[in-house]
Amino acid sequence: MNFNTVTLQDEPLAVVILDQTLLPNETRYISLTTLEAVFEAIKNLRVRGAPAIGIAAAMGLYVHMKKRGHMPPDEFLNEFDKASAYLNSARPTAVNLAWALKRMPRVKDLRLMREEALSIYNEDIEVCKAIGQHGAALLKPDFGILTHCNAGALATAAYGTALAPIYTAHGQGMPLRVFADETRPLLQGARLTAYELFSAGIDVTLICDNMAAHVMQRGWVDAVFVGCDRVAANGDAANKIGTCGVAMLAAAHKIPFYVCAPFSTIDPATADGSQIIIEERHPSEVTEMWFARPSAPAGVKVYNPAFDVTPHELITAIISETGVLNFKT
Amino acid sequence: MNFNTVTLQDEPLAVVILDQTLLPNETRYISLTTLEAVFEAIKNLRVRGAPAIGIAAAMGLYVHMKKRGHMPPDEFLNEFDKASAYLNSARPTAVNLAWALKRMPRVKDLRLMREEALSIYNEDIEVCKAIGQHGAALLKPDFGILTHCNAGALATAAYGTALAPIYTAHGQGMPLRVFADETRPLLQGARLTAYELFSAGIDVTLICDNMAAHVMQRGWVDAVFVGCDRVAANGDAANKIGTCGVAMLAAAHKIPFYVCAPFSTIDPATADGSQIIIEERHPSEVTEMWFARPSAPAGVKVYNPAFDVTPHELITAIISETGVLNFKT
Repeated sequence: MNFNTVTLQDEPLAVVILDQTLLPNETRYISLTTLEAVFEAIKNLRVRGAPAIGIAAAMGLYVHMKKRGHMPPDEFLNEFDKASAYLNSARPTAVNLAWALKRMPRVKDLRLMREEALSIYNEDIEVCKAIGQHGAALLKPDFGILTHCNAGALATAAYGTALAPIYTAHGQGMPLRVFADETRPLLQGARLTAYELFSAGIDVTLICDNMAAHVMQRGWVDAVFVGCDRVAANGDAANKIGTCGVAMLAAAHKIPFYVCAPFSTIDPATADGSQIIIEERHPSEVTEMWFARPSAPAGVKVYNPAFDVTPHELITAIISETGVLNFKT
Repeated sequence: MNFNTVTLQDEPLAVVILDQTLLPNETRYISLTTLEAVFEAIKNLRVRGAPAIGIAAAMGLYVHMKKRGHMPPDEFLNEFDKASAYLNSARPTAVNLAWALKRMPRVKDLRLMREEALSIYNEDIEVCKAIGQHGAALLKPDFGILTHCNAGALATAAYGTALAPIYTAHGQGMPLRVFADETRPLLQGARLTAYELFSAGIDVTLICDNMAAHVMQRGWVDAVFVGCDRVAANGDAANKIGTCGVAMLAAAHKIPFYVCAPFSTIDPATADGSQIIIEERHPSEVTEMWFARPSAPAGVKVYNPAFDVTPHELITAIISETGVLNFKT
């Protein structure tokens, strides 16, 4: 499963992304040729998902610097630092953004920069494949799987993290049923996950976030798979708002709860979940963004955190390309 | 707090309701003069909330029969039975609908029928007031209260059930903070609860359903108050989809979880929650109804149960007009 979510185009030079704000109604690829355009695309979730924004930022940094090949080396490196810090500020929670930008070589060598951006991209494909294999080994025929938000091909270079085990098992002919939380306010579950799985011919049922408990209560869910934006050193995991609630419901129903993420998502510099910065986004995402008319009275207070932290004791295992990790105390 | 959610108008004869599908953008009262119009208004949630639909049905039955005063008695009673069964079939889950219709006198006496419909209405106001007083006694200054869906003045003749304690305490000058779950798919929390509380000058913050766990995790919630559509004999309670999940999250955080409902909501004929019929509604409520463009790919499966059942062991107490009941085993 590959949507060419984010790719590097050499001629004319651009980061080309599938604009995910238009899905599932419109499939439009856009070329980002300036640093500001890359920043805007990350900030406004035209490209989203922890691995994908890392890739987009690395490619965006290369595209920006490539056009500055005429600069003397110290001016070039100065601009490199500024551009990197600017892109890194687009979103605060996912560690992959900073991680990918840090991987970019801080030398005036554009060939090396291009190669590194492409390595980050290609490695992500391999990482997703490996997560798919490790995760698929945990599945059994006719499993019901619940997922929240989108950690699929649209969140990565290809295949996805949380959805990779599903694609892998499906490819092996294993029958599965998937429940996709719609994931308010930005509806990534409805717009992206349901779209991905439906396109792939996988049995997917869309539910509202508040139906997850009911679906679990009915015995329809055998495992939960979610992605992740940052894992703290103690195993606490930040992911899309609502993930923590799903983890609590899974625990109450004794359903295994798996976090799927590249090993690079584990951030030893963050001791525990309380230190992870939770991005708060604009109230209009809740009350206006997708609606024909506002859903709430003008002026009412809205709290719109984009992420929450799932305590490590609720996580059955973290599935990365290196295997299945268990941080439970 | 009284919106004249549903009232009986004698001249010209009609059930007058506030069309809640248009809130908060438009305040429009509509006159229902036929049985079909009353049925449609209940079915399509122009009037909703367990107590309010009972009142609307009783008044609607009277309006319908009043125009049939010329019928001979047995034809009249035959029509009474047919009309009552028809209205009762508009929605299956709330017991109040059947309860109110059963209260209507099955005799050809239109004065008596009018009085009974008005009694159901007036008693509901008293019931809500009493729930408000019993519930307010459980609150303390600066409490954070989370509520799901709308069990307010818009769901009853006045004051509401779950919101009645909040109105009562607010009226006594007690500072409170309320979190209103937006309540997908029909957004009753955003459109109705946030609207009600904001209009009343109460500190209300709108959140998406999937943010409830995060808000509890932060320590901002001291009590949960919800309404109810049917309480089984063992204390299991059916209410708006998502309620059961909120109850599980509250239990995990040791936050008291209160169900507020008229005593008539307790249905001894239903042994436990597994016997309560859960209404399933159309997928378009999830993917299309409020949106400028569909939120999901055309043809994708959607599961849209309108209610869920909270097991009695998760309910701290049921607050009715008779006092605070505890079914916990």
